[in-house]
Amino acid sequence: MSLLEQTTARIAPLDADAQTAARARLEQLTMPHWALGRLMDLAVELAGMTASAKPRFDKRIVVVMAGDHGVVQENVSKFPQVVTMQMLANFFQGGAGINALARVAHADVAVADLGVAGQIESVPAAVKFFSKKTAPGTANMIQGPAMTREQAVQALEAGIEIALELEDYDLFGTGDMGIGNTTPSSALVAVLCGASPADVTGHGTGIDGPQHAHKVTVIRKALEVNRPNSDDGLDVLSKVGGFEIAGLAGLILGAASMRKPIVIDGFISTAAALVAHALAPASADYMIAGHASVEPGHRTALDHLNKRPLLDLGMRLGEGTGAALAFTLVEAASRLLSEVATFEEAAVAGSVGE
Amino acid sequence: MSLLEQTTARIAPLDADAQTAARARLEQLTMPHWALGRLMDLAVELAGMTASAKPRFDKRIVVVMAGDHGVVQENVSKFPQVVTMQMLANFFQGGAGINALARVAHADVAVADLGVAGQIESVPAAVKFFSKKTAPGTANMIQGPAMTREQAVQALEAGIEIALELEDYDLFGTGDMGIGNTTPSSALVAVLCGASPADVTGHGTGIDGPQHAHKVTVIRKALEVNRPNSDDGLDVLSKVGGFEIAGLAGLILGAASMRKPIVIDGFISTAAALVAHALAPASADYMIAGHASVEPGHRTALDHLNKRPLLDLGMRLGEGTGAALAFTLVEAASRLLSEVATFEEAAVAGSVGE
Repeated sequence: MSLLEQTTARIAPLDADAQTAARARLEQLTMPHWALGRLMDLAVELAGMTASAKPRFDKRIVVVMAGDHGVVQENVSKFPQVVTMQMLANFFQGGAGINALARVAHADVAVADLGVAGQIESVPAAVKFFSKKTAPGTANMIQGPAMTREQAVQALEAGIEIALELEDYDLFGTGDMGIGNTTPSSALVAVLCGASPADVTGHGTGIDGPQHAHKVTVIRKALEVNRPNSDDGLDVLSKVGGFEIAGLAGLILGAASMRKPIVIDGFISTAAALVAHALAPASADYMIAGHASVEPGHRTALDHLNKRPLLDLGMRLGEGTGAALAFTLVEAASRLLSEVATFEEAAVAGSVGE
Repeated sequence: MSLLEQTTARIAPLDADAQTAARARLEQLTMPHWALGRLMDLAVELAGMTASAKPRFDKRIVVVMAGDHGVVQENVSKFPQVVTMQMLANFFQGGAGINALARVAHADVAVADLGVAGQIESVPAAVKFFSKKTAPGTANMIQGPAMTREQAVQALEAGIEIALELEDYDLFGTGDMGIGNTTPSSALVAVLCGASPADVTGHGTGIDGPQHAHKVTVIRKALEVNRPNSDDGLDVLSKVGGFEIAGLAGLILGAASMRKPIVIDGFISTAAALVAHALAPASADYMIAGHASVEPGHRTALDHLNKRPLLDLGMRLGEGTGAALAFTLVEAASRLLSEVATFEEAAVAGSVGE
């Protein structure tokens, strides 16, 4: 059995006993019933994921996966491809948005090369780096499949391997870097959610109206040329996906197989989550939607996964920034289970007539 | 000149130069233009509040102000009045929701008695406590003013004094505790926003339909009996407010007078913010709306202040829990100004054709 098959087979349903115990305790906390709303819902989910009524998330990490995309030849992005490599150097130096927001969240950042079009010359010793390049960028998906089925499995399994190597962490977050990667993400969302490319294609890094119309045309053409089978997640991923997207799908599967919650960042990460869900529907139980991106396809993808984002701050950066921001809410939810007194413990009177 | 007059006179407009400098730097960060959306908007506001293009918020505190309400005689709450005192003991022991969430936010918690109906016997030495009782609970506002004008000023100035004593802190948050305090809060919102009591009265701690209808009737009666003058914030506060609400309004004015941002928690805190705004409109520039409460009047009050909440998690606890959760977003916004590299600093290529 392949690592991919082993991993998907290992993903268990949420633990009902832990959820029941968590819910029972939350209903006794010194506050009006369920007064912390979605934070309490999340606490119950976390109990189910971890099979613990008092889960802790002291060790947390955002894994930023990077890859390049052949489709950038079609002029779908506002930035040149070299920026993917340059941003990796920025991550290494700690100067990117995700570095700042991970520090706020007391989270580590790992960086992984799943398929960048260039050679990483050196990595500072303090940086957690994974060298998992399948190829230096995908093929141009309007001319044929972005990758072979074997390459897709390789990148998925690289993501699983990274998750397993990071098993000491209690909480995972997804992050992406790859110039052009909203284009394959829109293609994935269109196929896996049965949506029209025009409805799920946005302005990415900030392209204008004509370039956006062109981007939709490129996605339509990629779907016509490749005819991905929406019932076969691996077929869809290989034909119109990307290496970092495959790696993130693998990371999600790996985290779920270890009963670790994983916070899904924005649009690209949610496209990866759709792939993970297509390969192993139970993996969705371990996903937490970090935030709502301004990319129009993001809501389509989240609805498909039946997820409601925790934050809605008009963000569209990727890198895991929305996941890192949401880490604090996950920690807050978990602390309700372990740090808030019940009416009985605190000798506080309950509501009248109950 | 009274402390209240001195304080309102000292509230300055936002610093335009710091805002310009902050905006200029944010536009050069290694990310697509304004890709962190509202976090970047908030960073600019923080620069204006603090008159610094690189503000820091290392020391943060939630101030939970407590008071009791004569109107609880009218059966408007689901919990008995004694719970206000019992919850103070819970705050002292660190077992309440705000204690847990403040720890997550690396924030201190201060507790202040502005007008609790009972004697605080002892306070653990480690607790930051302010004894500022004007009276042991307000009068029943359906029989006449909740407090005298002098009492309202006394409680406002108590809040200002607390802010000034906490001047070492960089970031403030408001919190409330007082059984029955959604009733005066709804009355304040109705008067100060020109809304109907029925539209801005919610279910508080969880009262059912008939008790809710009764609560609306009680608020209507209080407004008829007292006829507060909506052009006179002090008149409105004294007639249908509360001591902890007055104290929170004072805290807001005091923070604003020191150019310190103050995160407004939920419905009761926003009612206090309306009072602060009525007394000194410029104070609103220093307010950050932490979250959207499920209380229906909260949106009315936020709209009146032209504020959009950072979080929307279906919460309705008070105590400053929504403020504490939002502290992390404030810190994240500020770190964008000091910890993220520009395109030039990181040698990353900018967008094509710009």
